Amino acid sequence: MGVLTLLRDNGEVICQRTGKNLEVVAVSARSRTKDRGMDLSDLAWEEDPIALARRDDVDVVLEMVGGETGTALELVETALRNGKSVVTANKALLAHDGMRLSRLAEENGVQLLFEAAVAGGIPAVKGLREGLAGNQIKMVYGILNGTCNYILSSMRETGRGFDAVLAEAQELGYAEAEPSLDVDGYDAAHKLTLLASMAFGTQLDFDKLQVEGIRRISAPDIQIADELGYRIKLLGLARRLPDGSIEQFVRPVLVPKESEIGKVEGVFNAVVANGNYVDEVMMVGRGAGAGPTASAVVSDLVDLARGTSVPTLGVPCDALTPAKLSNDEDLYRAVYMHLTILDQPGALAKVAEIFGREEISIASLIQREGREGLPVSLIIITHEARFANIRAARKELDALPIVVEPMHMMIIQEL
Amino acid sequence: MGVLTLLRDNGEVICQRTGKNLEVVAVSARSRTKDRGMDLSDLAWEEDPIALARRDDVDVVLEMVGGETGTALELVETALRNGKSVVTANKALLAHDGMRLSRLAEENGVQLLFEAAVAGGIPAVKGLREGLAGNQIKMVYGILNGTCNYILSSMRETGRGFDAVLAEAQELGYAEAEPSLDVDGYDAAHKLTLLASMAFGTQLDFDKLQVEGIRRISAPDIQIADELGYRIKLLGLARRLPDGSIEQFVRPVLVPKESEIGKVEGVFNAVVANGNYVDEVMMVGRGAGAGPTASAVVSDLVDLARGTSVPTLGVPCDALTPAKLSNDEDLYRAVYMHLTILDQPGALAKVAEIFGREEISIASLIQREGREGLPVSLIIITHEARFANIRAARKELDALPIVVEPMHMMIIQEL
Repeated sequence: MGVLTLLRDNGEVICQRTGKNLEVVAVSARSRTKDRGMDLSDLAWEEDPIALARRDDVDVVLEMVGGETGTALELVETALRNGKSVVTANKALLAHDGMRLSRLAEENGVQLLFEAAVAGGIPAVKGLREGLAGNQIKMVYGILNGTCNYILSSMRETGRGFDAVLAEAQELGYAEAEPSLDVDGYDAAHKLTLLASMAFGTQLDFDKLQVEGIRRISAPDIQIADELGYRIKLLGLARRLPDGSIEQFVRPVLVPKESEIGKVEGVFNAVVANGNYVDEVMMVGRGAGAGPTASAVVSDLVDLARGTSVPTLGVPCDALTPAKLSNDEDLYRAVYMHLTILDQPGALAKVAEIFGREEISIASLIQREGREGLPVSLIIITHEARFANIRAARKELDALPIVVEPMHMMIIQEL
Repeated sequence: MGVLTLLRDNGEVICQRTGKNLEVVAVSARSRTKDRGMDLSDLAWEEDPIALARRDDVDVVLEMVGGETGTALELVETALRNGKSVVTANKALLAHDGMRLSRLAEENGVQLLFEAAVAGGIPAVKGLREGLAGNQIKMVYGILNGTCNYILSSMRETGRGFDAVLAEAQELGYAEAEPSLDVDGYDAAHKLTLLASMAFGTQLDFDKLQVEGIRRISAPDIQIADELGYRIKLLGLARRLPDGSIEQFVRPVLVPKESEIGKVEGVFNAVVANGNYVDEVMMVGRGAGAGPTASAVVSDLVDLARGTSVPTLGVPCDALTPAKLSNDEDLYRAVYMHLTILDQPGALAKVAEIFGREEISIASLIQREGREGLPVSLIIITHEARFANIRAARKELDALPIVVEPMHMMIIQEL
């Protein structure tokens, strides 16, 4: 209930900034009696949340229910149909149903605002959709999930494995009991879907996004990446290639330690946009939590109170075009490969032979010492090569009898 | 002429984003024949720039003249009086005359927008005034002058002195032939004046800002700061203290190397705002140059085309209050002192005695080796102490016969 306490604590400055009193007239929640740190007894209470969207004394509906279907969807739809603007933090809902909902907002002459849905307290939506509105955006990328960034930072600092650090993050409240939405990359993917649409004027298309999470990253991956000058980050990235197609993904990548994005650690989020006139702008801040979320939600309320009117995704729905996705196979990429092989005479020759055949040249190779006959880690960093060839090499390598488990491969992204 | 090329290059996306064609109808400049990389012959030409503000076919006037008086002021005033919105990149003009001009805009029902005046391409004005509008801002600070940051970064990387690096920056076009506005801190001070007003809802008051530039910073200062874990940055900072008073300054300070702001290097600018709900948000990008400036100017034009209307300084002029500035003397600060003293027996005892008397405890002390009888550098880092006492100690130290030149003192700012 950060929004309610914010409106109480900061009511005076908000009134100065908008010339209006933002009055909360009615509330609905699962439990009426839960302690929310403030007295709600002055507010009308609706047992049925959808009823909020039908009240005559409501101008704007805040949807803080969460979830991509059910109540959240019905509440937003009903509010928009009834001519009420909606402010939501619900990235899942928008990533899946945003096209339909933005159109509904447009048809009903109201606003659908979602600053809190992307990168928490960072004004990333406003920054991109308004602050950089003079630019053709070439690329937008970021660290869009604080839980994953916390886990990766903590793994690096402590040398511990994914499971141990996840368990600790869950105890600390940085990760959910059911962590899949975060650690499997879907939350970041919802946010990237929204950013990519605003950046390129393309229709939301969550289903076509490549998504990979961080579960397979091991402590040695992180340590070796560090030795080689890289940080492993769960990155969401979308960029327009010279042929007009769009490359986009959410996955763990190696970024240079010294890059701006490589320095973003812990629970922080960062969003970077590269425009053809502004060059690169980065925004960093807290990506989650009641305070930052409330800050973002209320910035949308302030915009509404000031009468600001902007198309939900930056351009009217009819102007949004389908994104033509680039063909992965033809891109040139450098990758990190972590193989687990039996340390037998001739093992390296077999590996090297595959790289030669696929025309991939090797930039670094590290073999961790092990006892003969037992599995050892073989880390290979390649130079840029055609991704189709890298995939082929991966398949051949994984099929070698000396390779004891499927490799872990990550892209190296120079940023 | 970045704005004109931007409007040509990005006209299509801007039209999609605004639903309008932003048409340049008339131009005025010193020389009509200068090569601006594009053909201006289709545009009406005004020999007298003020005439632009009187044309019936003009809705918005862009002021890119520069300077805090003269043509720029007259152009902006005339445009606002004639009911035309103004977009300007002119921080000097606004820092000095912004109160009067915002009032004029308000009285005439038009907008006075200035995204490009603060931190170039970074949407810092929008970020603070709109994106964080739900917060009570506790502090705003930043690296607001790319020239100074470039010089300081370059001094550290090369070990060279201020004069040599300035000369190089001038050759590279990163510094003006007359560098005072940048290196003496005034440009950063103009920007901080605007940020502080928007952050705290206070009247613009450039004259009361403490300003110190970077000319006295030496190569050893930078090197020793580095050894002690600090970077020297020209920082503009304004914060509200618990008693409601505002501390604000532009001056070189030592910030921790590992702080976010300490990592911002070269020509980049950074603006950080700390709000009571959002916590800290940082924005980083290019602070100058034709491209970033045009990006910021056009983002204002897009806002105007979309019909966005925001008070110039975030609240209506009448709601702006005079800033009550804090009394420096009562603040507790840690400082860096660089003394040049004669290395005589008993010298250190005399120095130490003064610190004891003023109740300032010393955190680190470094004496660079020298030959007896010749001046040596004595660097002292203090713990936090009452600033009045630090000032008194400074005076006494500078008066010691063994001290051969006035010390160089800088504040240490934990951020």
